[in-house]
Amino acid sequence: MRYLSKLFQPVITIPKNAKIKNTEITCKSQKLLLECGLIRPTGPGLFTILPLARRSLDKLENLIRSCIEAAGGQRMAVPSLTSATLWDKTGRLQEIGPELIKMEDRHGKKYLLAPTHEEAIADLLADVGPLSYKQLPLLLYQIGNKYRDEARPKHGLLRAREFSMLDAYGVHEHEQCAREVYSAVTDAYYTLFQTLDLPVHRVEAPSGDMGGPLSHEWQLPAPAGEDSVYVCNTCARAALQEGPCPKCGGETKEVQSIEVGHTFLLGSKYSAALSAHCTPSSGPPAPLYMSCYGIGITRLLSASIEALSSDKCLRWPDTIAPYSVCIIGPKEGSREWQTHGIGAISQLYQTLEPARPGDVIVDDRHQLTIGKRLMMADRMGYPYIVVIGKAALSDPARYEVYRSCAATASVQLLTATELLGLLTHTHTQRIQINNVA
Amino acid sequence: MRYLSKLFQPVITIPKNAKIKNTEITCKSQKLLLECGLIRPTGPGLFTILPLARRSLDKLENLIRSCIEAAGGQRMAVPSLTSATLWDKTGRLQEIGPELIKMEDRHGKKYLLAPTHEEAIADLLADVGPLSYKQLPLLLYQIGNKYRDEARPKHGLLRAREFSMLDAYGVHEHEQCAREVYSAVTDAYYTLFQTLDLPVHRVEAPSGDMGGPLSHEWQLPAPAGEDSVYVCNTCARAALQEGPCPKCGGETKEVQSIEVGHTFLLGSKYSAALSAHCTPSSGPPAPLYMSCYGIGITRLLSASIEALSSDKCLRWPDTIAPYSVCIIGPKEGSREWQTHGIGAISQLYQTLEPARPGDVIVDDRHQLTIGKRLMMADRMGYPYIVVIGKAALSDPARYEVYRSCAATASVQLLTATELLGLLTHTHTQRIQINNVA
Repeated sequence: MRYLSKLFQPVITIPKNAKIKNTEITCKSQKLLLECGLIRPTGPGLFTILPLARRSLDKLENLIRSCIEAAGGQRMAVPSLTSATLWDKTGRLQEIGPELIKMEDRHGKKYLLAPTHEEAIADLLADVGPLSYKQLPLLLYQIGNKYRDEARPKHGLLRAREFSMLDAYGVHEHEQCAREVYSAVTDAYYTLFQTLDLPVHRVEAPSGDMGGPLSHEWQLPAPAGEDSVYVCNTCARAALQEGPCPKCGGETKEVQSIEVGHTFLLGSKYSAALSAHCTPSSGPPAPLYMSCYGIGITRLLSASIEALSSDKCLRWPDTIAPYSVCIIGPKEGSREWQTHGIGAISQLYQTLEPARPGDVIVDDRHQLTIGKRLMMADRMGYPYIVVIGKAALSDPARYEVYRSCAATASVQLLTATELLGLLTHTHTQRIQINNVA
Repeated sequence: MRYLSKLFQPVITIPKNAKIKNTEITCKSQKLLLECGLIRPTGPGLFTILPLARRSLDKLENLIRSCIEAAGGQRMAVPSLTSATLWDKTGRLQEIGPELIKMEDRHGKKYLLAPTHEEAIADLLADVGPLSYKQLPLLLYQIGNKYRDEARPKHGLLRAREFSMLDAYGVHEHEQCAREVYSAVTDAYYTLFQTLDLPVHRVEAPSGDMGGPLSHEWQLPAPAGEDSVYVCNTCARAALQEGPCPKCGGETKEVQSIEVGHTFLLGSKYSAALSAHCTPSSGPPAPLYMSCYGIGITRLLSASIEALSSDKCLRWPDTIAPYSVCIIGPKEGSREWQTHGIGAISQLYQTLEPARPGDVIVDDRHQLTIGKRLMMADRMGYPYIVVIGKAALSDPARYEVYRSCAATASVQLLTATELLGLLTHTHTQRIQINNVA
């Protein structure tokens, strides 16, 4: 059994009258993640991800992996330590400037900690090339840490200096192939956000320093967002600029939002500068056509909390809550405790666990009342909270089942078999959604 | 279906008479991983992990995770960017010196890229503490990149500057508790190396700069090893020092070996320096007792190749080969091709895939002869190579099954059903071994 008392979850109770500096905790997700013992700052824009948040991150990474692999992605890993020379060749060493974390090795050679890997990928393609058009397209991706020396890191994981990213790079013979891969990755993004039940908007965006003819930002509406999008009241289509909806002409309203992903057609900016060539089906070797796709993973985690939570309680997309099910047994010494004891908890755990393998946790702090533990479980946002209360004394035993979306309002009384059915059914639905990708 | 022609696997063919500088490729695993298109250097001691090696690494990380979690480990993530001040407090900023990669942020604050995280963990424990003895023991672990500015990075992934590590930290009230966790993690290590079929020796080692009363190195015999251990001819027990076996008095012989893991009881060196305290069951608060456990993951990957491969062919522990099964169909235009065509390959794939989900690959370079592709598959070391040859024309169809350990010597002719049985049986055995952990 997995016991809550064994979790490393250093909860902070901030006294009601404490004065908190405005600059320290600036948004809901940061406050909840910190107070509930899921993250811990180690310095400006730097955070330890504690075990419960790490479990969420694992789930989110797995979802992202299956989506990007369904689009043809092959996972690899490029070093974070990147030669500064490469960035000098594309001009970005100067352009990006102080946001780059730079260092020298013991021999004085200059490196930077990559915030993104267009240069490194183009250099790799040059090193192994020229690639034949027959080997293309390729979609190479990584999941790992990126670094950005933000002038003002803030909002916790929303704007950190070390953060986890998906970065994927499309490698193509020409723009037309690139558009096909772009479309496949776009579908993968839609599947991902649908699986997470998040209303993310895709909006056309300028390409900026990245170069290329096409770019989209993926924006999740949330109050703490530093961006904003204009969403049509009629057709729900969104745009970065104000104005009537270009699709249906409807009126738009501005909503604050968080950029959780971006997609770019890059053209040959990086491949030309770093000599990454393709041998096309006809004609002489030419620079490869590249595209790139990013999702800020730690940012998406906290953005989804930002979008779904109340001021006092964490709420997660069901698929990435740290645990699916939390079982709360009777209080020590109560009549239910004397009748059921530990045995009933263990039995219920054994029954439910196969429906959510490794994903059921028992709040074994039996010295606390059920009410107190229920309140804390609600604050943590476990999708299913199962209480062994009075109805467990009846025959057949029934359990109180709370869904985190409306913990106090909607309680169901279910037998173990009904509950197992519910957990299996919703789980299978999820798996089917994932497989559609 | 997964097709070999779609893999990003830039193979290097080095001409027979080419002169290779001795300093560049210094060991078997480095040579094979490079030539077979699994890694690619980006600078001294820095490597891109290409898709096939990344698959192996994923498998190895999963095995390590399940072993360390069976010992009670909770996964978390501490930033790589670590404040230099912490390391100054324990004295290691000076002690380790040039091996640390140091940098400053835009405000001039000093950081280093952590080669290990004792300081960061002790600082976290101080920040959330003092911990009650009731919350202990804890076993906190990470899987992620570590950094060391090696004076002479060499042997490819065996001595790199950026490398993947498991680092786990035990947190205890006192030495006795620490010895219990130490023993649980030792069991987890044994299970891991047994699952990998690797004859790793545990040898008592001096604690050195790490401090503490107990330490073991975990050494894998392999020709390229920079260490050596003395293994008893009689009882196979090993030691770091020369001399008769302390257990049975037998004679020992020296073998070269690679350190793939280490385990330490640390005592309170880090907790005392960084004020990480425990409220014990009786008496005043005292510094926590710490232990630590490391496995070099990328190093273990290449060490296992170093130990198992021939000069010309990659050999993997079965559990971490990039793909379990490689299917080779008939050559285009052959009689078998005309009879079977693509349909037979697809059918066989559909039959075998459920036994090894996501882990079967088809060598679809049908313009090449079976012999040529068989030779290349043998060089890659796929545990099962399945050839659709002449016997597939008989009724029932039989397939040539080669095991990578003796590809030319031991060919079996099996029906699809027999083959499915074999793959399912060996897979189930593996899963059982993993679950023992």
